[in-house]
Amino acid sequence: MGKMIYLDNAATTKTAPEVVEAMLPYFTEMYGNPSSVYDFAGKSKDAVTKGREQIANVLGAQKEEIYFTAGGSEADNWALKATFEAYKSKGNHIITTKIEHHAILHTCEYLEKERGAKITYLDVDENGVVKLDELEKAITPETILISVMFANNEIGTLQPIKEIGMIAKEHGILFHTDAVQAFGQVPINVDELGIDMLSSSGHKLNGPKGIGFLYIRKGVKIRSFVHGGAQERKRRAGTENVPGIVGFGVAAERAMHSMADRTAKEVLVRDHLISRITSEIPYVKLNGHPKKRLPNNVNVSFQFVEGESMLLMLDSFGICASSGSACTSGSLDPSHVLLAIGLPHEIAHGSLRLTLSEETTMEDADFVVDKLKDIVANLRSMSPLYEDFIKKQNK
Amino acid sequence: MGKMIYLDNAATTKTAPEVVEAMLPYFTEMYGNPSSVYDFAGKSKDAVTKGREQIANVLGAQKEEIYFTAGGSEADNWALKATFEAYKSKGNHIITTKIEHHAILHTCEYLEKERGAKITYLDVDENGVVKLDELEKAITPETILISVMFANNEIGTLQPIKEIGMIAKEHGILFHTDAVQAFGQVPINVDELGIDMLSSSGHKLNGPKGIGFLYIRKGVKIRSFVHGGAQERKRRAGTENVPGIVGFGVAAERAMHSMADRTAKEVLVRDHLISRITSEIPYVKLNGHPKKRLPNNVNVSFQFVEGESMLLMLDSFGICASSGSACTSGSLDPSHVLLAIGLPHEIAHGSLRLTLSEETTMEDADFVVDKLKDIVANLRSMSPLYEDFIKKQNK
Ligand SMILES: Cc1ncc(COP(=O)(O)O)c(C=O)c1O
Ligand SMILES: Cc1ncc(COP(=O)(O)O)c(C=O)c1O
Repeated sequence: MGKMIYLDNAATTKTAPEVVEAMLPYFTEMYGNPSSVYDFAGKSKDAVTKGREQIANVLGAQKEEIYFTAGGSEADNWALKATFEAYKSKGNHIITTKIEHHAILHTCEYLEKERGAKITYLDVDENGVVKLDELEKAITPETILISVMFANNEIGTLQPIKEIGMIAKEHGILFHTDAVQAFGQVPINVDELGIDMLSSSGHKLNGPKGIGFLYIRKGVKIRSFVHGGAQERKRRAGTENVPGIVGFGVAAERAMHSMADRTAKEVLVRDHLISRITSEIPYVKLNGHPKKRLPNNVNVSFQFVEGESMLLMLDSFGICASSGSACTSGSLDPSHVLLAIGLPHEIAHGSLRLTLSEETTMEDADFVVDKLKDIVANLRSMSPLYEDFIKKQNK
Repeated sequence: MGKMIYLDNAATTKTAPEVVEAMLPYFTEMYGNPSSVYDFAGKSKDAVTKGREQIANVLGAQKEEIYFTAGGSEADNWALKATFEAYKSKGNHIITTKIEHHAILHTCEYLEKERGAKITYLDVDENGVVKLDELEKAITPETILISVMFANNEIGTLQPIKEIGMIAKEHGILFHTDAVQAFGQVPINVDELGIDMLSSSGHKLNGPKGIGFLYIRKGVKIRSFVHGGAQERKRRAGTENVPGIVGFGVAAERAMHSMADRTAKEVLVRDHLISRITSEIPYVKLNGHPKKRLPNNVNVSFQFVEGESMLLMLDSFGICASSGSACTSGSLDPSHVLLAIGLPHEIAHGSLRLTLSEETTMEDADFVVDKLKDIVANLRSMSPLYEDFIKKQNK
């Protein structure tokens, strides 16, 4: 096998070498527990503080508003479950969308079934954008929380976060956003956008796996999710993952500094991919908003093609990609996101997600499109549905 | 400052160089998401499977019974909260002890206040050992879970786990043990000991911080704690911390292989420390069971001395140690463990915990005792209480 072309950066990214470099001393040299009192442990404590500052900077937040977690899923669970517990005497209603990540959706289902919450799952339009008038209409005196993702992990659509923040504020409702895909990719200022809580995960922006954070605006009375020791200002128990925090801090700073150039380059490659795929392959559709989308996200559906077969054939050429199907849920159901934007099952099944990195070149993009053309043609040539369709066309 | 003598291995340990070595390729080379379908991600998946096997081996468990978490606190929270949810239709009563870690105690308080659980907190004897007859007496038809720690993190006392497992089994009650301090230090076989669930944390045995696991015996119908993706056989959502899992696996295997020699050596140094301290310093008391204790734990209380002052002065000689007070909780309350074994407040306040590693030498021990003698004498010479006491003695 030749060179690998990794186009699954929405699933996870390569940890940047400078991130690993920064982490290393905290394994074998400065390994103290930040809660200990001696000098040696002070170095670990300082490192945690620095990581917190680096992340707060990216958001325009204060460092005391950053709470480290094990990743995006824990942050999402925490935001929803512990806000519900803190505010349920005020009301039991939460508003979210149909296209959230499962870390939000399954948590909402849990709150509905186990804890007496009422959840509204908002529809989105054909580009995957939340309808603000429906959001407004869904608000009741019982509504305590709105949780809308910043950017969708499958189709890349960016939501009107500022408008949602304003609506939340007008009604005195807390606003949480799952920014796992957006943090480090698009500028985010929590004050300007009116965000009260925000989830993020290190491994999506060239940081390490197993570390994330929840931003919690000062004054939000969320409870704890992981109970125990007094770490994270008594809000999240557990010995701090010092190397992980150091790595996440460096990754966040790095992503902020490189954002403008990196994403400008990604947008060029992204749009080249989209334009070649949609013009050179027939019966294809771009999913997600044509403009308001993550700089590194391409999501397309091919008629008469199985996503999984496409992935396997791309893999044989060293191309790592992902399909629209929720393969991680272990089921063959088509993606809830693609269904929510109105795709019929059979088209949702033929979806392909390509998510770029700063390392993806135009040559990579051309190579992928060339292979994809062959693969799609090949798979269609084996499809009885496609055969029928073409026969009908030719009549 | 000269050499550092690190005697706080119960707080956290140095990550072993071979552990870091094993982790490194999973940051920048084999960084794929284990849930992805292409070949490249298969390497990450295999690494996770291997880590799971290495850990299962240490416990005599099956690899499918190991569920990775972010650490011991998450594992403890999961075991209690999600067992309660799964079995609450059967009963709402949980039995635990007064000397558990806060990850258990605060979770129990949460379950009592928020979720309608009834918790019995068992007393322990003066050595910190649970009284089995009281355990038996506490069982009611409503009891669904017994959670007793394997070894105490402050005083090192080992509990009669096998007997507790038998009692649980006789009554058809699930048995969870917090083995965060015991895993890798003492032999544990979950079948022989009748353990249904067991918590552990990587950084306590020269593995990385930010990774832990919950062992869940096949058949235990525990719910999820972190909801979302289908990772960990649909029981614990979140992208797997691949480097962390690899590191924990290597650390577990390493701890198992070195256990006999390492702990034999630690016991010699430990007993030397205990014997010199208790014979050469007056008004001192050993805390915890004299024999049934962790091989690396020394915990002593000095009358007429403040633990925090002792720590600062030890620190000035490069000695890292911890006091009995629950400093991590940010309060100056004396340790709940020391109070539970019957120490009066003022004696609990003068406590010192020294926890050794395989690297601790007899020379280190002698150096520490020599300094400690001076420090204790020095602090007492400044104590009005001590002065009074001596005056009375001399009358
Ligand atoms: C007995 C015990 N349980 C649980 C924990 C919590 O582990 P962690 O801090 O890795 O979450 C600790 C560590 O402090 C411990 O000693
Ligand atoms: C939008 C979104 N939210 C949450 C998550 C969960 O993050 P993690 O897997 O790091 O826990 C992901 C990652 O898959 C995501 O894309």
